[in-house]
Amino acid sequence: MSPTLCRPALWFPENTINLEETLNLCRKLHGGHEKLQAVLRMIENTGVKKRHIVQPIDATLLHPGVEARTEIYQRETRRNLPGVVDEALRSADVHKDDIDAIVYVSCTGFTMPPMTTWMINELGFRSDVRQIPMAQLGCAAGGAAVNRAHDFCLAYPDANVLIVTSEFCSLCYQPTDSDVGMLLSNGLFGDAIAAAVVRGKGGTGMALSWNSAYLVPNTEEWISYRVKDTGYHFQLDRRVPRTMSMIAPTLRQFANQQEWDVSSLDFYVIHAGGPRILDDLSDLLGVPTEAFRHSRSVLSDYGNIASAVVLAVLQRFFDDGSVTNGGRGMVAGFGPGITAEIALGTWRAPAGREEGNGTTGEAHRGPEQVASLSPALIAR
Amino acid sequence: MSPTLCRPALWFPENTINLEETLNLCRKLHGGHEKLQAVLRMIENTGVKKRHIVQPIDATLLHPGVEARTEIYQRETRRNLPGVVDEALRSADVHKDDIDAIVYVSCTGFTMPPMTTWMINELGFRSDVRQIPMAQLGCAAGGAAVNRAHDFCLAYPDANVLIVTSEFCSLCYQPTDSDVGMLLSNGLFGDAIAAAVVRGKGGTGMALSWNSAYLVPNTEEWISYRVKDTGYHFQLDRRVPRTMSMIAPTLRQFANQQEWDVSSLDFYVIHAGGPRILDDLSDLLGVPTEAFRHSRSVLSDYGNIASAVVLAVLQRFFDDGSVTNGGRGMVAGFGPGITAEIALGTWRAPAGREEGNGTTGEAHRGPEQVASLSPALIAR
Repeated sequence: MSPTLCRPALWFPENTINLEETLNLCRKLHGGHEKLQAVLRMIENTGVKKRHIVQPIDATLLHPGVEARTEIYQRETRRNLPGVVDEALRSADVHKDDIDAIVYVSCTGFTMPPMTTWMINELGFRSDVRQIPMAQLGCAAGGAAVNRAHDFCLAYPDANVLIVTSEFCSLCYQPTDSDVGMLLSNGLFGDAIAAAVVRGKGGTGMALSWNSAYLVPNTEEWISYRVKDTGYHFQLDRRVPRTMSMIAPTLRQFANQQEWDVSSLDFYVIHAGGPRILDDLSDLLGVPTEAFRHSRSVLSDYGNIASAVVLAVLQRFFDDGSVTNGGRGMVAGFGPGITAEIALGTWRAPAGREEGNGTTGEAHRGPEQVASLSPALIAR
Repeated sequence: MSPTLCRPALWFPENTINLEETLNLCRKLHGGHEKLQAVLRMIENTGVKKRHIVQPIDATLLHPGVEARTEIYQRETRRNLPGVVDEALRSADVHKDDIDAIVYVSCTGFTMPPMTTWMINELGFRSDVRQIPMAQLGCAAGGAAVNRAHDFCLAYPDANVLIVTSEFCSLCYQPTDSDVGMLLSNGLFGDAIAAAVVRGKGGTGMALSWNSAYLVPNTEEWISYRVKDTGYHFQLDRRVPRTMSMIAPTLRQFANQQEWDVSSLDFYVIHAGGPRILDDLSDLLGVPTEAFRHSRSVLSDYGNIASAVVLAVLQRFFDDGSVTNGGRGMVAGFGPGITAEIALGTWRAPAGREEGNGTTGEAHRGPEQVASLSPALIAR
């Protein structure tokens, strides 16, 4: 029996900024920027309609120093994470005592000891829980967390692993940076907390079959932090949106190795790094646009929420009920390296619920797309 | 067949500072400190005779800013890590192509992407190597790296995992901090790079049988970083040296669960956090002083080299040949949380070398200690 990734839980801060506010802010703060028009166009093209941010926008735009930002990171994580964790545990039908390891990923707040220590002390996890904090994988950490939890359950088949991500990208806002990559990022990233349980035995959701990783050679500088007195300065190379041509063959090949056809899976949990990534990848994999609908809607509703994206996308597949028992799917997280973290698995529906309950997915599929859907979906 | 932790390789910078120089420096920099005499006594009591530091002492005492320090961290890691990795691979008799995952731990330099990306690109590891960087576990990360590598090989029995730690504690020196904990730390920590391979199959060294972790409740603040504009500010609570009474029962219990007697193992790879930790733990476990000799000598020769300590201690057991085939041992890393990462395993000697070649261990054991040695050792 494969380890199963159960329904993720998410939390978003109540403060929001919409596209129009973002564009106005960019015009106001960078009115004299020589590439202002191009930046505004790029931000519009992200498809991000709204983002949630952990502080009101006025406070977000200030830089009170690394220490104050770290305190905000800790305070807001401590305040808002417990409810997310509780919901993830309930969805997986496990208790805190059942959790054997916590994989905690975040590239937007650094603490030592890691937040897992606080979770064990204050939320009541067992004192022998394995703490697996990873801070340096950026957006790819969502996929990496799923894969390391999968591995842990392969090592210990009775284990349950809690995955947590707390990403407050707005706490990495750098007022003095004005290169195009940073201005685009200022319009792209959002904040979120997410959690999910991987159960070694039992559970419903995505039964994890295989995982892999791929580092695109010699792209180390393309997505990176400059680590300064003012904290992390995000650097985004203009070549990043076009990296899918370097990653798609690996996704295809990895599916082929399992004798799966990557172009006809039943669900795709793809990191919504940006619109070009989703457009290119669906083209390159020969997948209907609609297949990435949840990646697009997460991007639109929340922006790029870093390592939390894949859990947000997966949650929508749970909720729309479009995937039926045995449906095949992929998780693909992308991030600095440039690294892809990839998982393949099959849908394990609750007993007595062999068919999906939703039609959201089907309703949007045009007739021209049906030909490329998987046999399993067509047969349904 | 259990995964095997093979012989570690280590590198130390050529710049050194000895105890006398440390004491003089402390007198010079903190001549008016109200607790100067106590601090000097504590530093003397650490038992640290010499430390290696990545820059000459004059440069070490400066704070050129977080960005410059991060650059030094990267530059010196890139320059000196390849030789350590090559030696670790040779000792394990594996090639770069055989490595499936790299666990990279360090709490003294933060980069995104992690150094594993650079290793894959520049040192020639496979592009599908799993990158497992952990930055927030401090000194406990040495034990955690061993344990996560062990777990990975349980999940994938044919896998090989490379463990790397690059700790430049001197890059976290904070000239403006003068609390007693910091002044003591300034006399305690040293720099090192270490690497070792855990082989899923084959290899000689410590065959890893079981691992565990333990968080001492409500000690989260005792060892921690304050993360500021000036980087990581290490905070060491005065209660830390006395924590072994809270950890020893767990070590004993974990050994008991495997029907091993923790007081009579054949080798102890104990994190050399400080002399009190080693003294207390040997008392509490009922272990002869001599059993922790390599922890003491590593502390004396290099200071507390954070997550690299356990690999340095283990290397000395390889080199002194005191453990014979089948000998039972423990790895115990301690760090912020306060967390203990624990492993139990048996010695797998090279074929045709069933007996140890060294007598270091035996020679120092007095007759009164023999009673508490393991049956295996007494029989030898």
